[in-house]
Amino acid sequence: MSDVKQSRPDMAVLAAEIPPLVARMADAAREVTLGYFRGTELATENKAGSGFDPVTQADRACERLLRDMLAQARPEDGILGEEFGPKDSQSGLTWVLDPIDGTRAFMSGAPSWGVLISLRDESGAIYGVIDQPYIGERFEGGLGRAQLSGPHGARTLGTRSTKTLSEAVLYSTYPEIGSKAEQTAFNRVADQVQLKRFGLDCYAYGLLALGQIDLVIEAGLQPYDILAPIAVIEAAGGVVTDWQGGPAHEGGAVIAAANPEIHAAALAVLQED
Amino acid sequence: MSDVKQSRPDMAVLAAEIPPLVARMADAAREVTLGYFRGTELATENKAGSGFDPVTQADRACERLLRDMLAQARPEDGILGEEFGPKDSQSGLTWVLDPIDGTRAFMSGAPSWGVLISLRDESGAIYGVIDQPYIGERFEGGLGRAQLSGPHGARTLGTRSTKTLSEAVLYSTYPEIGSKAEQTAFNRVADQVQLKRFGLDCYAYGLLALGQIDLVIEAGLQPYDILAPIAVIEAAGGVVTDWQGGPAHEGGAVIAAANPEIHAAALAVLQED
Repeated sequence: MSDVKQSRPDMAVLAAEIPPLVARMADAAREVTLGYFRGTELATENKAGSGFDPVTQADRACERLLRDMLAQARPEDGILGEEFGPKDSQSGLTWVLDPIDGTRAFMSGAPSWGVLISLRDESGAIYGVIDQPYIGERFEGGLGRAQLSGPHGARTLGTRSTKTLSEAVLYSTYPEIGSKAEQTAFNRVADQVQLKRFGLDCYAYGLLALGQIDLVIEAGLQPYDILAPIAVIEAAGGVVTDWQGGPAHEGGAVIAAANPEIHAAALAVLQED
Repeated sequence: MSDVKQSRPDMAVLAAEIPPLVARMADAAREVTLGYFRGTELATENKAGSGFDPVTQADRACERLLRDMLAQARPEDGILGEEFGPKDSQSGLTWVLDPIDGTRAFMSGAPSWGVLISLRDESGAIYGVIDQPYIGERFEGGLGRAQLSGPHGARTLGTRSTKTLSEAVLYSTYPEIGSKAEQTAFNRVADQVQLKRFGLDCYAYGLLALGQIDLVIEAGLQPYDILAPIAVIEAAGGVVTDWQGGPAHEGGAVIAAANPEIHAAALAVLQED
């Protein structure tokens, strides 16, 4: 026990320091991403001179900004982001960033994309934010916090108590999910739920944490797609694992559920084959 | 020519009277619908005592309110709404109301549902509004107006100039569209576009009018699902017809397109069989 190299960071210190920093980062990310969102054709053509489409430009500008803020505020922490190379951690803490999750929504003007900012240590997610800049909604979880703030005020996050698939609402981003086998397994669950819907990207994880839906099932995720949702959903009382029931923070095939019972019910159907 | 019974109403008079009335109606609809949106489980159970689910309650309360306002302001106009029986027109004008378009989005907390308020005469749509109360966005078209107003200010609507399916972004509410034959026809188009996405309900028509996407293709629509989108999209420069290229204001299988060229391209593929 005394030989543990990297002790778990002091959570009281993190609880004081991290949320205000992430709030500043997410505020800054709103400004930069909204500058590229819903551009006109003319604006898109002008920006095309850079060789990047507007979504890629927004993605890179946003991650660059977040990395700069972290270099100032938390130089010893590692960074894993979608757009640029990983930075090793000297502190045992690593930031996991997806500057624009849901680039297809972003490029079609739909406000279901989000900025994902999260912090992890070796054991997993510590804190995360799912921010939707256009609507102005921020889902926040971890370090003792579980809250949505937005244009209609603040609200404590909390998941639903739905117990059976026949009462459950399921979301996923695309109807075409992962491999053929993954698609078949997903469809088995989808066929048993009360309602399935597509298209919400990271916003669906926020709705789950807010107690509006019961399941999000996806495949082919990257770590930066799922770490912030894990922090938010776990803080709200939900469960996030891979399709084998193990940790989901490395991405892959992931199931997020409102509570342990509906998680077990959906997982059993995913694994039936 | 002199024997025409019902002359087209005076558009200058309507242009002065109708938009302010609809703005008041849509404002009132925001208040009533948001009172039911994203309820907690506890609130849902309390409201369940009425024998109606919260979505149905919101739907009915909203349409009742809109009808009451019209009874005061425009007693001679007809009304066709989703929830209550039709009211005949004495003026040649009929209001077409969908108090909550996208009830499945509403019941899962997703802000892609909308309040649809529109006015028609015998020849079709005169004016319409697609309002998204939670985000606070209002797409308005007809009587010389084509505008989005929302939390980030006002913007003139205008559709895109995309000419080929391979560059086009297509939206539809569900992957399961209409009959088997309709599904097959839809899939032929979906297979040729740059990007297809699902799940936005009436909000997708707003994005088309705003120049963010190129096509919305759906089937099985009711008149009250499509009349407001027709007014908004036509005012923005787009084209809305049924899958035979005829008028779409009676609903059914509908294609909305950013411009005549992309409309023709998609219609040809829909009709290939």
